[in-house]
Amino acid sequence: MVEAFDPGNFAVNVFIYIVMSKGIPNPEKDFSGWYKQVVTRAELADYGPVKGTMVIRPYGFQLWENIKNIFDHMIKESGHTNAYFPLLIPKSFFAQEAKHIEGFAKECAVVTHTRLKADEEKGIIVDPESRLEEELIIRPTSETVVWSMYKKWIQSYRDLPILINQWVNVVRWEMRTRLFLRTTEFLWQEGHTAHATEEEAQKETLDILELYRQLAEDYLAIPVFTGLKTESEKFAGAEKTYCIEAMMRDKRALQAGTSHNLGQNFAKAFGVTFQTEHNQEEFVWATSWGVSTRLIGAVILAHGDKKGLRIPPRIAPVQVVIVPIIRDNDQRSDVQKYLEPIINGFAETGVRYHIDWTDNSPGFKFNEWEMKGVPLRMEVGPRDMAEGNVILARRDMDKKISFSCENVNEKIPTILEKIQQSLYAQALAFRNENIHTTNSYDELKQIINEGGFVRCGWDGLDKTETAVKEETKATIRCIPFDEQPKDLTCVYSGKPAKHEVIYAKAY
Amino acid sequence: MVEAFDPGNFAVNVFIYIVMSKGIPNPEKDFSGWYKQVVTRAELADYGPVKGTMVIRPYGFQLWENIKNIFDHMIKESGHTNAYFPLLIPKSFFAQEAKHIEGFAKECAVVTHTRLKADEEKGIIVDPESRLEEELIIRPTSETVVWSMYKKWIQSYRDLPILINQWVNVVRWEMRTRLFLRTTEFLWQEGHTAHATEEEAQKETLDILELYRQLAEDYLAIPVFTGLKTESEKFAGAEKTYCIEAMMRDKRALQAGTSHNLGQNFAKAFGVTFQTEHNQEEFVWATSWGVSTRLIGAVILAHGDKKGLRIPPRIAPVQVVIVPIIRDNDQRSDVQKYLEPIINGFAETGVRYHIDWTDNSPGFKFNEWEMKGVPLRMEVGPRDMAEGNVILARRDMDKKISFSCENVNEKIPTILEKIQQSLYAQALAFRNENIHTTNSYDELKQIINEGGFVRCGWDGLDKTETAVKEETKATIRCIPFDEQPKDLTCVYSGKPAKHEVIYAKAY
Repeated sequence: MVEAFDPGNFAVNVFIYIVMSKGIPNPEKDFSGWYKQVVTRAELADYGPVKGTMVIRPYGFQLWENIKNIFDHMIKESGHTNAYFPLLIPKSFFAQEAKHIEGFAKECAVVTHTRLKADEEKGIIVDPESRLEEELIIRPTSETVVWSMYKKWIQSYRDLPILINQWVNVVRWEMRTRLFLRTTEFLWQEGHTAHATEEEAQKETLDILELYRQLAEDYLAIPVFTGLKTESEKFAGAEKTYCIEAMMRDKRALQAGTSHNLGQNFAKAFGVTFQTEHNQEEFVWATSWGVSTRLIGAVILAHGDKKGLRIPPRIAPVQVVIVPIIRDNDQRSDVQKYLEPIINGFAETGVRYHIDWTDNSPGFKFNEWEMKGVPLRMEVGPRDMAEGNVILARRDMDKKISFSCENVNEKIPTILEKIQQSLYAQALAFRNENIHTTNSYDELKQIINEGGFVRCGWDGLDKTETAVKEETKATIRCIPFDEQPKDLTCVYSGKPAKHEVIYAKAY
Repeated sequence: MVEAFDPGNFAVNVFIYIVMSKGIPNPEKDFSGWYKQVVTRAELADYGPVKGTMVIRPYGFQLWENIKNIFDHMIKESGHTNAYFPLLIPKSFFAQEAKHIEGFAKECAVVTHTRLKADEEKGIIVDPESRLEEELIIRPTSETVVWSMYKKWIQSYRDLPILINQWVNVVRWEMRTRLFLRTTEFLWQEGHTAHATEEEAQKETLDILELYRQLAEDYLAIPVFTGLKTESEKFAGAEKTYCIEAMMRDKRALQAGTSHNLGQNFAKAFGVTFQTEHNQEEFVWATSWGVSTRLIGAVILAHGDKKGLRIPPRIAPVQVVIVPIIRDNDQRSDVQKYLEPIINGFAETGVRYHIDWTDNSPGFKFNEWEMKGVPLRMEVGPRDMAEGNVILARRDMDKKISFSCENVNEKIPTILEKIQQSLYAQALAFRNENIHTTNSYDELKQIINEGGFVRCGWDGLDKTETAVKEETKATIRCIPFDEQPKDLTCVYSGKPAKHEVIYAKAY
């Protein structure tokens, strides 16, 4: 259960020092090793003591807070409110919806006892007398507990819609874990809405998907495909699952958010009916939707390069890092004075900045802040001051430019916005280069093997999807909204296509 | 495990309807019944399906968000950052600090298995083959997991201080629960700091207590005593526990926040040492501190009256509720037009408002929003419009005043501020009336019995504290910072007082 790693161990520390000083793996050659190093060396996260759990460190958590605040604002603007539902769900509740329990049964953390006690031989043990009558499940998602409450709260159409969201932790017992991408516990928001009509629920499902698209594209600078999941890939208990799918730098897909139309499934499982305006009794219509700390993984994997992270300015914890180039305390106070009007300007424009006054060398600092993905670096040394300039280095390109100190405050918000756009443009160009249309299964296999997305026809059959998955490890990521299945044939069976789909290997 | 209450049951619904329409219990006669009714009828919270758990409904959660945002801002301003540590703690970690495990062993939710499976006879059961090698504890507090990580992160004095906080859920298996005041799961913030010196840790402990005092007094409008806990009341694993203690309307005490100087206890338990500037190896000094959703209970119990909640404006989800007095749709559009400049003004001044356009009668609406504790009600009807006025009713007093529409935008922030001050002044006056100094144990018994705080001498002995507790149910709430023990004698033993203390019955 507990990791073998022991930081007190001298040999381990020496080993770590050597690895650290040697830089990170080349992402072109070892993307997975690169990812692991970047996450820990940028101090985004660390492994927790229990296998598969994650500690989100302050720098990673600030990134999460920025993403969270943006989406929280979006959903509040569109009439949703936050609430809190309990962590622990009775086993019987959880088993109420057949597909739901089927989907989650194999990854449930189960609470069975409520006390520890001292045992003379074995030390601290679980008190067998504290065994619960009914076991409790730590929520892997909250549909069941939410709908058990909605049963209490909904009587008539006047009580609808209910538009509730919660920002919480959930636990899914995963065997193979990776920080941010797949962890036993993760943080997310889960929206749970209740509606009087099917149309309204469907509209909500798609409205939220559109917010997810905006969050991904306009803030995380990650272009996404929006579309419908196939039956085999949809959420356990949903009628329809819609998703945003992004391409990472290794050309694999990452599902970055899902929005589910749950139909009346959970209302039926929990007996939630309402009186309509015409005095009929009907089951309530439902949606649920979520994005998680996985989004941080998406940012790392979509924008990172050989120097480390590249964080889009709109979500960056630090937008501008200032590195003073100084030799002594006199120079330090000169730089401080010189920076004063710039800092004051940041306070006005709301630019998030950090001044690195540590004793490390400028080169060390450059590397460290590049690793941390800060969008813009400002260098200020004696020569710059003499000339009335500062030097700005953009993280999205390999270029330093000297700017007059006078108008730097005016320029920086514009430059940050340009970096935001440039990161998006780079990710979009990369995706466009690596998505291919084809009619040939051989070609599909080759593309999937070499890395990339394939857009092609699908006959709509489960068995086709399964066969392709078994033979290539690629799955149907989505049926994109802009599909044009007419005149296409299924890439596998050669039959007329029912849908145009996107195949890719996925995280 | 699951509550017997069934909202689908007709008889229960009729019963609830009758209770609701009859109003709430008189707080002077049945404070506990009053509390329960107010919490549920103001839609702050509801019981969850698992005994002792709580659903925080949107109105209650908005209140929590406001409190959270204020304190989050305070700690960030003072150099702290947020992070996230895992929910699940290995049993062996948890048992590492002897006093700590002693304090929490009897209220631990224990995870033992990680899968469910279908059983032909019994339905869904816990898969016995998924039993964990080492059981996991759901965090009741996170010192142990935090210090297991600090061991990784701290090597030298350059790594210190660490000033981390997290906003999370915790679980403590309580037998007797009450919404917000004592629930099996609750939300809180827990700060965990690491320092190079004892002095710095002690300063941090007291600095945070001062922030708690400000939060309680300046925002929640609740006057608090600040002081030190006795040995028997301190946190399990702390050297010293400081607290803020408030008086509720039933004259009982409520501990509203605690700040602990943990000395080197957790550093020793987890072997966390650091290299000092002078190349010595020393154990790290620690603090931890927390406030929880219990603060919402404090707001209810400190300010509520027979009509329901009274929420201080600075934390109120709705600061101004507007009740239009209209008969038909024509009047509705008149009122809408009339309100427009006022609403625009609110957007500018940031006043949080709500317009109640429901079909309910004005009387019903008045009651409902008084129950929900909205500080200020604005009434607008045809006569007010004809006169160019609006009517304002303050929740903190029984008075309606007509204001000219012209300057109402200017006035309202000032009125809200006056309500804030008046709620504080009322709570302070109430506390002053109900705190007594005495030298006589008989008098102490009488005061405690009738309700109130007693300020008196204490000989500093455990057994005295225990005896008073057994005989009167009152505990020493704190040794207040402004104690003047000189010339006092112990109210119980008659010996010279070591401290001046505050005795009270507590929540």
